[in-house]
Amino acid sequence: MRRSFVFIFSFIVLSLSAQEKLLTIEDASYMNPKLFPARVRQLQWIGETEHYAFAKENSLYKVSARRGTETLLLDLDMLNTGMRTNGYDSLKRLPRINLFNDEAGYFQIGKTYYEYNYKSHQLWKVNMLPDSAENIDFNNDTRIAAFTIKNNLYYAEDGKVKQITFDKNPGIVNGHTVHRVEFGIKTGIFWSPDGKKIAFYRKDETMVADYPLVDINQRIAKVKNIKYPMAGETSQEVTLGVYDLETGKTVFMKTGEPKDHYLTAVTWGPESKTIYIAILNRDQNHLKLNRYDVATGALQKTLFEEENPKYVEPENPLYFRPEHNDEFIWQSERDGYNHLYLFNTDGKLLKQLTKGDWVVTDFLGYYGKEKNEVWFLSTKTSPLQKNIYKVNIENGKITRISPDHGTHYALISKSGKYVIDIFSSTDITRKYQLVDSKGKTVRVIQKDKDPLADYKLGQMTISTLRAPDGTELYYRLIKPVDFDSTKKYPVIVYVYGGPHAQLVTDSWLGGAGLFLNFLAERGYIIFTLDNRGSANRGLAFEQAIFRNVGTIETKDQMVGINFLESLPYVDTSRIGVDGWSYGGFMTLTLKLRHPEIFKVAVAGGPVIDWKYYEVMYGERYMDTPQTNPEGYKKASVLNYVKNMNGKALVIHGTMDPTVVWQHSLLFIEKAVSLNKQVDYFVYPGHGHGVGGKDRVNLNEKIWEYFRDNL
Amino acid sequence: MRRSFVFIFSFIVLSLSAQEKLLTIEDASYMNPKLFPARVRQLQWIGETEHYAFAKENSLYKVSARRGTETLLLDLDMLNTGMRTNGYDSLKRLPRINLFNDEAGYFQIGKTYYEYNYKSHQLWKVNMLPDSAENIDFNNDTRIAAFTIKNNLYYAEDGKVKQITFDKNPGIVNGHTVHRVEFGIKTGIFWSPDGKKIAFYRKDETMVADYPLVDINQRIAKVKNIKYPMAGETSQEVTLGVYDLETGKTVFMKTGEPKDHYLTAVTWGPESKTIYIAILNRDQNHLKLNRYDVATGALQKTLFEEENPKYVEPENPLYFRPEHNDEFIWQSERDGYNHLYLFNTDGKLLKQLTKGDWVVTDFLGYYGKEKNEVWFLSTKTSPLQKNIYKVNIENGKITRISPDHGTHYALISKSGKYVIDIFSSTDITRKYQLVDSKGKTVRVIQKDKDPLADYKLGQMTISTLRAPDGTELYYRLIKPVDFDSTKKYPVIVYVYGGPHAQLVTDSWLGGAGLFLNFLAERGYIIFTLDNRGSANRGLAFEQAIFRNVGTIETKDQMVGINFLESLPYVDTSRIGVDGWSYGGFMTLTLKLRHPEIFKVAVAGGPVIDWKYYEVMYGERYMDTPQTNPEGYKKASVLNYVKNMNGKALVIHGTMDPTVVWQHSLLFIEKAVSLNKQVDYFVYPGHGHGVGGKDRVNLNEKIWEYFRDNL
Repeated sequence: MRRSFVFIFSFIVLSLSAQEKLLTIEDASYMNPKLFPARVRQLQWIGETEHYAFAKENSLYKVSARRGTETLLLDLDMLNTGMRTNGYDSLKRLPRINLFNDEAGYFQIGKTYYEYNYKSHQLWKVNMLPDSAENIDFNNDTRIAAFTIKNNLYYAEDGKVKQITFDKNPGIVNGHTVHRVEFGIKTGIFWSPDGKKIAFYRKDETMVADYPLVDINQRIAKVKNIKYPMAGETSQEVTLGVYDLETGKTVFMKTGEPKDHYLTAVTWGPESKTIYIAILNRDQNHLKLNRYDVATGALQKTLFEEENPKYVEPENPLYFRPEHNDEFIWQSERDGYNHLYLFNTDGKLLKQLTKGDWVVTDFLGYYGKEKNEVWFLSTKTSPLQKNIYKVNIENGKITRISPDHGTHYALISKSGKYVIDIFSSTDITRKYQLVDSKGKTVRVIQKDKDPLADYKLGQMTISTLRAPDGTELYYRLIKPVDFDSTKKYPVIVYVYGGPHAQLVTDSWLGGAGLFLNFLAERGYIIFTLDNRGSANRGLAFEQAIFRNVGTIETKDQMVGINFLESLPYVDTSRIGVDGWSYGGFMTLTLKLRHPEIFKVAVAGGPVIDWKYYEVMYGERYMDTPQTNPEGYKKASVLNYVKNMNGKALVIHGTMDPTVVWQHSLLFIEKAVSLNKQVDYFVYPGHGHGVGGKDRVNLNEKIWEYFRDNL
Repeated sequence: MRRSFVFIFSFIVLSLSAQEKLLTIEDASYMNPKLFPARVRQLQWIGETEHYAFAKENSLYKVSARRGTETLLLDLDMLNTGMRTNGYDSLKRLPRINLFNDEAGYFQIGKTYYEYNYKSHQLWKVNMLPDSAENIDFNNDTRIAAFTIKNNLYYAEDGKVKQITFDKNPGIVNGHTVHRVEFGIKTGIFWSPDGKKIAFYRKDETMVADYPLVDINQRIAKVKNIKYPMAGETSQEVTLGVYDLETGKTVFMKTGEPKDHYLTAVTWGPESKTIYIAILNRDQNHLKLNRYDVATGALQKTLFEEENPKYVEPENPLYFRPEHNDEFIWQSERDGYNHLYLFNTDGKLLKQLTKGDWVVTDFLGYYGKEKNEVWFLSTKTSPLQKNIYKVNIENGKITRISPDHGTHYALISKSGKYVIDIFSSTDITRKYQLVDSKGKTVRVIQKDKDPLADYKLGQMTISTLRAPDGTELYYRLIKPVDFDSTKKYPVIVYVYGGPHAQLVTDSWLGGAGLFLNFLAERGYIIFTLDNRGSANRGLAFEQAIFRNVGTIETKDQMVGINFLESLPYVDTSRIGVDGWSYGGFMTLTLKLRHPEIFKVAVAGGPVIDWKYYEVMYGERYMDTPQTNPEGYKKASVLNYVKNMNGKALVIHGTMDPTVVWQHSLLFIEKAVSLNKQVDYFVYPGHGHGVGGKDRVNLNEKIWEYFRDNL
């Protein structure tokens, strides 16, 4: 927290003036493609070269990073010549081409994979998968694809399909991601580096309770059960199998008991003979990084352990060093901030590569001639920003690469000499520029084009407040359009407040969406504050909510309310609050713990009582209802319904598989039982969010509710 | 319809003035017992005598009809003496005593039956049933009780339980009522007159689709499936078994195929050797009255058949004449109005006992010395009224017994010399009087006491309007309190509109509930009209909706709207509509077919598309979706959502087993898909209505919705 004492961050961004248009509700719901920031399509580095490719209309161009010269790489006509030569159907538009190297790439039409050599202009089918294939992992080296059909794992080579697992019980699921998304796990299939083995998750959820979702679009409404282990209830049992394509045999890693632990950070050893798994106990406070022999499944070694009285949160794999097969980088929050650590495969810590009261948000890879430059994104400059950095493994020197403030992403040439820096900021909608390895801009690839240039927007400010204990809290305030400081305006507080999210950022519109700007156009002050628990501020900031969600978050939000009340142009009798998911929980928590402040609340997909939330996320932050009954009781919105006054609208998707419908129905039931008037709406068939064109209906509902009641 | 041309019915009922209190929302929701009309408890004739009994506090009194003298029959102390003598627990209050005759009666504590001789003051247990017993039919003659536990039938004699059916599959249900309540069937157990046999329904619903209701009050929400055959889908198969207590054997009546027909009007032959069943085909337009031999199950004879191009609707059993075992009365709408017909057991029609453009609503029994007086309730005087009548079988002479206009019920002494006439009317809250067989008042048993005497109510009018084709339509109009004819008032139309219901009656408050009067107190004109399709106006009036529900009803309701628009004190820009169930269907139908008229709608538990409604009711009025696709399409509210403007609130109980939740969810889904704004609320855990204290919350929700939007 030292930084916050020496650095008071505060700046004001003025929107351009002289605009006249207002956002329509369709605009605000992202139904108007003209309002999307322009993208450069198919932007990618070509193999090991210092050339990148991009697509324009139906052509793919190659650009020299050094010289900037553009040459045509291939176009739709060329592809279609190849297609016709082989007797395949012509394509109507250029598909996404994944360039293997500077000669060839592949593309996918449906479930068929085609390879195209853009030097020889030859084209051929390399693989073909069944239509029902899902979770496809196409191996660029071998052109073999592993995939799932329903709950079993398969692979296809040259169009020939082979089944790997044969589980008939749909409660045993192979090759799918596991543990929801709570451990950064995005896949259930892991190709070995040599392409000869497939590691895969096997999830046994037969012992997990069914949660019934009801599909009303059947002739007679029909139950679709999902497996939904709730906090404190019986959870799934996950193991890791390794299938050998040559022998056709599967070996399961001996990951031991209790079986409801978490298998995270799955990473192949570079030699394809071992696999690393970070095993986290169900209580999530003790991690062992284990290495297994894939030939036998035997545990070879526990490299190291990590413990934390609250929770340990492995979210990333190991990153082995190129040409140093015995060294890898591990991300850890062990010193209070997420940083990069270099270990050897004996488990010895060789070096902490990054350090400080800031966090590494993304590991980008090893680059440079010696591959001893580790590139990453971090909040080193400011918690609001993500900049591109590299650290030299040998001398520890950190260089910032991205020259401009904002939220950056990077595509780095294999040599590490050039970076495509893609970013937005409070000044920039989206810009693509080529930067060299010293952070000097070589060339703008695509200038910023503000799609809202003709629109009238409210003035947006990002600044900080201090909690009573000195903790710095970032907020964003959007003033109404045509703001007049002598008038008084109602406020809508937009809140999320839960872990792994940060609403106030140095990015386009300060991280606010178009709908919040729509509301500001209708005369509301829009206020958002990232309270403790939220992302990118380090472990202490996040873990402040442990076992007691809702309380410190509310206190921090009240710091924001006190600030609002100090502003002469705020109508303190007209403060509303709005949020979804954890933000729905926070919305109702704020409304009901501070009914004297919040006149109107709109809560979507809200967690009402954490004991109905799922085990992985729920227990990480709250332990179990059995071990933390007081915390669960204090957090339950049901226990504050008695304070209800004013207006509250609760909204839920009827097929929500994340915050199940039971939450909001229990809230309504409780309100009715206490004879409190609340409002309710549902989006039939929608899950944990209302997407697509129905979003217009949702936003209009929210807007009308504030309009009519605040 | 002739009557309506010669008799223009129109009267105005003025509420008493000089009251000051207004109903609270709790009052309007029947939470205030002081507002219930006073009841005379345990009122009953004593055996064959001309004495009746009634209870006051913890005593039961006997009254001579002729002289009016009251004597104590028994009291709690006497009962408790008997209880203590037998070593049973004392009672805290007088239970309901069912008097067998002028010596003894029985009462029930929990599942135990006690008999008490109030001459000898002896008391003894006569039977005891398991706690899980349901659907109990206690035979007064034998003291044997037949009952069900779950899906099987049992009987108990002197506390000894014997199981009759042994079905393990819960989809086979014995001894329960069948075919919902659509055929007047209230029981699944039928004792033979000699008390030696039990006829019972056996319902096989294994082939019927499950409909999922979700119970959110489980730790993890849990599905409770109900069997719900929807219109056009596979329906249940019902048979009738006869169990012989002596032989322990069950014989099933050979009711034949197709098995998804309806078994109605189940009646034992007086000799206990035959049973009569009115078999109605699934299409509900062809009835056969069959007699079966209970010894073999063989069909003995089809007595007669009834057909109707629209539907035949048997709702009553046969009523055998005392001492004429070969004659019975059958109720039929064959001449267009429900009347009484005397048949013999050969199926020969001996005599039509009642006739005219009015309906018999209730058969009350055979009375008089020769038992040749048939008593009944009917609308002979006015469709608004139910009066007590008798008809002499021999000479056909009809005598009206109830002297006062209104809605009557009768308790008749076995001799037929005296009648306890219980009634309410637009003048009378509830009155009990003793009347003789000529309709002369002998004595008032309990005077009318108006519980609303201190309350200020709106002026209520009942009168008629004419549809364009001349059909007379009854309406009720309640003016706001403190009505000022120079002002303009908003209107709430309260509608039901479906078969088997009549909202406008010559009864307390004209049939309006307290909530409608609450709304009138808040400044609304409350209007209700009984459109075609509704009850007690004859077959043509009801069947006008056949295959095309929603259309003629709407036209008739618009006759009411035209009338309202002609009134100088109606604000025609502020007309709302409210209704539940069929009334919810009508509410949305009116709102969406006439969006130019109805500004605000509140629809509870609404049928949205009849193909999701159940088979018995749905197919009677609409045939099947397969045979009447146009009718279903035209009736579906989903096809009118595109007209939505203004405000509509839809309300549903989440456990509604009658109009399943799918209806309103599909409505909401459709509205969202068309980007129409509608409002929604649910009552978790409630079924097809919101009862108990939660009714206050419901009524407040409805009232606030009109207050805020109309």
